[in-house]
Amino acid sequence: MMKRAQILKPCESLAIDTVAVPVAPPKGLVVKTAFGGICHSDLHQWENEIRQGSEGVLRYTDNPFYKLPVVPGHEISGVVYSMGSESETGDAKLEIGDEVVIYPWIGCANCNYCNFGDNNLCLSKHLWLGNVRPGGYASFVVIPERKFAIKIPKSIPLDVACMLSCSCLTTYNAVIKAKLTIEKATSRNGKANVLIIGAGGLGLWSIQMAKHILPKSTTITVADINEEKLQIARDRGCHLTLCWPSSLTDNEAIAQAMKNGGYDAIIDFVNTSKTSNRAFRCLGMEGKLVMVGLFGGQANYSLPGMIFGAKTVQGVVVGTLQTMKDMINLVAKEKLIPPPMKYFQLEEITDALNLIKDGKLNGRGIINFSSSGSHHL
Amino acid sequence: MMKRAQILKPCESLAIDTVAVPVAPPKGLVVKTAFGGICHSDLHQWENEIRQGSEGVLRYTDNPFYKLPVVPGHEISGVVYSMGSESETGDAKLEIGDEVVIYPWIGCANCNYCNFGDNNLCLSKHLWLGNVRPGGYASFVVIPERKFAIKIPKSIPLDVACMLSCSCLTTYNAVIKAKLTIEKATSRNGKANVLIIGAGGLGLWSIQMAKHILPKSTTITVADINEEKLQIARDRGCHLTLCWPSSLTDNEAIAQAMKNGGYDAIIDFVNTSKTSNRAFRCLGMEGKLVMVGLFGGQANYSLPGMIFGAKTVQGVVVGTLQTMKDMINLVAKEKLIPPPMKYFQLEEITDALNLIKDGKLNGRGIINFSSSGSHHL
Repeated sequence: MMKRAQILKPCESLAIDTVAVPVAPPKGLVVKTAFGGICHSDLHQWENEIRQGSEGVLRYTDNPFYKLPVVPGHEISGVVYSMGSESETGDAKLEIGDEVVIYPWIGCANCNYCNFGDNNLCLSKHLWLGNVRPGGYASFVVIPERKFAIKIPKSIPLDVACMLSCSCLTTYNAVIKAKLTIEKATSRNGKANVLIIGAGGLGLWSIQMAKHILPKSTTITVADINEEKLQIARDRGCHLTLCWPSSLTDNEAIAQAMKNGGYDAIIDFVNTSKTSNRAFRCLGMEGKLVMVGLFGGQANYSLPGMIFGAKTVQGVVVGTLQTMKDMINLVAKEKLIPPPMKYFQLEEITDALNLIKDGKLNGRGIINFSSSGSHHL
Repeated sequence: MMKRAQILKPCESLAIDTVAVPVAPPKGLVVKTAFGGICHSDLHQWENEIRQGSEGVLRYTDNPFYKLPVVPGHEISGVVYSMGSESETGDAKLEIGDEVVIYPWIGCANCNYCNFGDNNLCLSKHLWLGNVRPGGYASFVVIPERKFAIKIPKSIPLDVACMLSCSCLTTYNAVIKAKLTIEKATSRNGKANVLIIGAGGLGLWSIQMAKHILPKSTTITVADINEEKLQIARDRGCHLTLCWPSSLTDNEAIAQAMKNGGYDAIIDFVNTSKTSNRAFRCLGMEGKLVMVGLFGGQANYSLPGMIFGAKTVQGVVVGTLQTMKDMINLVAKEKLIPPPMKYFQLEEITDALNLIKDGKLNGRGIINFSSSGSHHL
């Protein structure tokens, strides 16, 4: 039987029930979940609310394809449990029992974006796993096509593996988006400054990514509201930290941040009006702000400031299947150190979401479906 | 003797006087001006005001190096009149009488940015010609280093040539910034859409640039408040136009613009809060907004919209010396058609600025210092 957690109504405790194990579709497979990451965006989904400033509020339920109840969860690792009848093609050779991580940003799998390999940009985003398609808050998950299941290298344990599909992929993609800017600044000035805003699961991954992707001379600074999280950031290898408690004014925070000089690139994993406007003002000449976080709000930038600073702002939405494969190779080869993980049972999911909401969960929360501990099954 | 026009006080009529012809500095030269373009930013300089929304107003006179009176003007073509004593180096072989256009974005010519060839990004922007350094509203101009004077190909007449350094360079750089995005969209969808906002001097150049730089399948749409300017845009080769009179609401303008589909790239030569927010909302998936105009104001973008749309916004500040050389080759080789030009005598400069302010000047206003007509001297 399959155990699952569903959102029945926004903000209400998730409902746990047990149903039959699903059948693999002809071209797809069923995965027996080992670990399921709990993403900060799951919280927005649960609350049914992403704020956009004067543009109003984005609600999941405004999407006609999105019908409650839903099984959330897009960070999924596990083993192949069953496969569909049609023979597989391409490089997706899989066997029952293989350890896999799932690429959940599937889209419609049939439009120009999906056919180009940009499934993450498909205009039918609601066809992501954990959104319209049932996700990883369940002991079994249906994967519509085999190519979306990626074999995990032996050096990556299954608990770490679940994070590869979102927190890890998104931070990799964000650091890649900052790479050219940092390389040019390094050529010009002999060094470069990068600022990471937010020392949660994504911020911690991004420190490790930055250390392995950006030039070694790059100074990595991390800002967070929470000194305890900044200590973990230092443990993961950042060079400088900025504590931004809520008592700090914008001008104070910016003055403190600018002591290290303007930043050639800033990656904002929080991305509220407050952090984004601070980031914009902390960018050095020709600097680039990469946006990732979905805390929500509105940008309020000086238009002439954008031009005279030759600034760039870019939004990042997860990454492609190919980017995920490239990233997995990096994580395995360079033995990147993951964020601290805190395990939860599926039955504890509502408590876990509340901990995240209160900013009390350091690193990444992970649902543990495995009876045999945290590593390979 | 040298005739010049100076700003004595913001918004007051410029003062015309006559002084001795300046002496060439050792490594530099003096140019006898043939034509001087009148840029929309000269208007901001005259008014001493660039608005930044809630960030307040940027004033030229806030810069301690900027002291009135100043000789504005950064679009300068002419002939080499005299040269300094030190022998020239590199590729800047020039002789008295050579027809040249001036690269005015000189900066300090001595920092990491300038040494890297990014003079336009020098933190000492006030050292641009026509700002702290005397500019092209004068019959002679001092050029501090010979490399900033570029020989004009014979196929480009001197009146067109003056525009190469700002209106032409900036639009070339803006189209180049949109190129990769348009090429990717074309690979993915077989075609792409670009929207140009503003059919003034820069917008008209950019149509020609877009036709020669972007894939031939790209649809070029131009928006302007003025139907007469849109007719000129059609004459210069754009495929579609959008008339945005001030009576149109944002939602109406966006609905009208989106009939052509979302835009893969938008270049905003106006760049007020209104045009920028419209542009942001008209961007298609993974679209790029390139900002050029200095009308001023504030961006107010949805942060989640930035991410879910995988959008990029980039500010462009003129271009480098090398980019200008590349652009001149393109203009000469492809025989790009310039915007309509309207000549003024130096004595008419205040009237010309007022015409620009009222939106009543189609194409580019140019000060004619030449006694022998509009072409080669």
